Amino acid sequence: MTVLAAESLAEKIADYIARLIIDGKLKSGQRIQESWVVEELEVSRGPVREALLLLESRHMVTILPRRGAMVTELTEGRIHNLYDMYVVLLTMLATLVAKNWTDADKDPLLRQAMELQQIAATRPATEFMYEAFNLMSTVYPIAKNEYLAQTLEALRPAVHRIYALTLRHTPGEANVAKSFFGELVTVVLTRDIPRIPEICESYGKRQRVLVIEALKKES
Amino acid sequence: MTVLAAESLAEKIADYIARLIIDGKLKSGQRIQESWVVEELEVSRGPVREALLLLESRHMVTILPRRGAMVTELTEGRIHNLYDMYVVLLTMLATLVAKNWTDADKDPLLRQAMELQQIAATRPATEFMYEAFNLMSTVYPIAKNEYLAQTLEALRPAVHRIYALTLRHTPGEANVAKSFFGELVTVVLTRDIPRIPEICESYGKRQRVLVIEALKKES
Repeated sequence: MTVLAAESLAEKIADYIARLIIDGKLKSGQRIQESWVVEELEVSRGPVREALLLLESRHMVTILPRRGAMVTELTEGRIHNLYDMYVVLLTMLATLVAKNWTDADKDPLLRQAMELQQIAATRPATEFMYEAFNLMSTVYPIAKNEYLAQTLEALRPAVHRIYALTLRHTPGEANVAKSFFGELVTVVLTRDIPRIPEICESYGKRQRVLVIEALKKES
Repeated sequence: MTVLAAESLAEKIADYIARLIIDGKLKSGQRIQESWVVEELEVSRGPVREALLLLESRHMVTILPRRGAMVTELTEGRIHNLYDMYVVLLTMLATLVAKNWTDADKDPLLRQAMELQQIAATRPATEFMYEAFNLMSTVYPIAKNEYLAQTLEALRPAVHRIYALTLRHTPGEANVAKSFFGELVTVVLTRDIPRIPEICESYGKRQRVLVIEALKKES
């Protein structure tokens, strides 16, 4: 019982810090003092430490011996590595969904995909980004692989971070992302499994170019 | 500084609990009381909670609302899911190593692979298992993808657990694993990348059959 209480608070603190990193308010390499978080959020040290461990496991924070926590630095190499990994996992997710969806899943999937298209057309790009990630997590129960889901969730804030970086510099990117998601949903619903790796790969290729450009502009 | 100290202790506690689960001393579904760990290891509650969170992120422990932590249950479905994921990641790791190794890596790789063959021939199967996992982590610097390395490390105790379960019921399995590792190293060193998925896939296929048999015997 205490474990869950502690975890929820740690999760909330982790989300708060993650958001500051995603929004670029905490910069690459910046130190995160435990005492600063303790004062800022009026919480005790225990859950702050748990939050920093959670953020470390999510690749947002690096914990250094005798120096404490800092915001994980974004480098070109790291961006390539993250996309290499993400494309493989997204391909696995889409493939499992394409294999497993049943009639009951079809309408909700289509509806969500359509909502996503509308959001891309009418709302700010960051909102689209959140919705796209939500679409991803709603298909986990169809994919039925908890290890994959947990790994994708662990990567979510890091992907989120570089995606937000892209949107700050290329706001029109949400329109390209919209086409990608539309295409992916179509391929999944027609169970055209051989095309999945190709679609994910080419989206990843394009994305990383944009992110690296944005990174150069910010530094 | 305090972060690291806390993390190291939490890591040690997590390793201790993980070992009990791997060895089958803590059973599937068994509750893990914080107070029991606190007394057993003479540590305070904070690092025990951090350890349970670490074990949750490593799929060894499930934390339930109002019920605390329990050993994650092994089911046939979970075993398939873990292998599906592991085969994809191992394929990615071997492919990256095959692409990136340089002359300086060749001798150490061959030496380690040979040591592994000797251990398989002369030592208990569990020792082979530990060495095989160590070989995997020594190639991370060649693969150069920290996200992949961290994900594989996060899955390590869960894979370890089902592998130990297999060895308890099929001790001769280490010999098959030996051939798999030998074959994989050869393919990596000849940079025969198209064969990697096939080798990993067929090993995963065989492994999961054995694990599921062992699971049935134990329950």
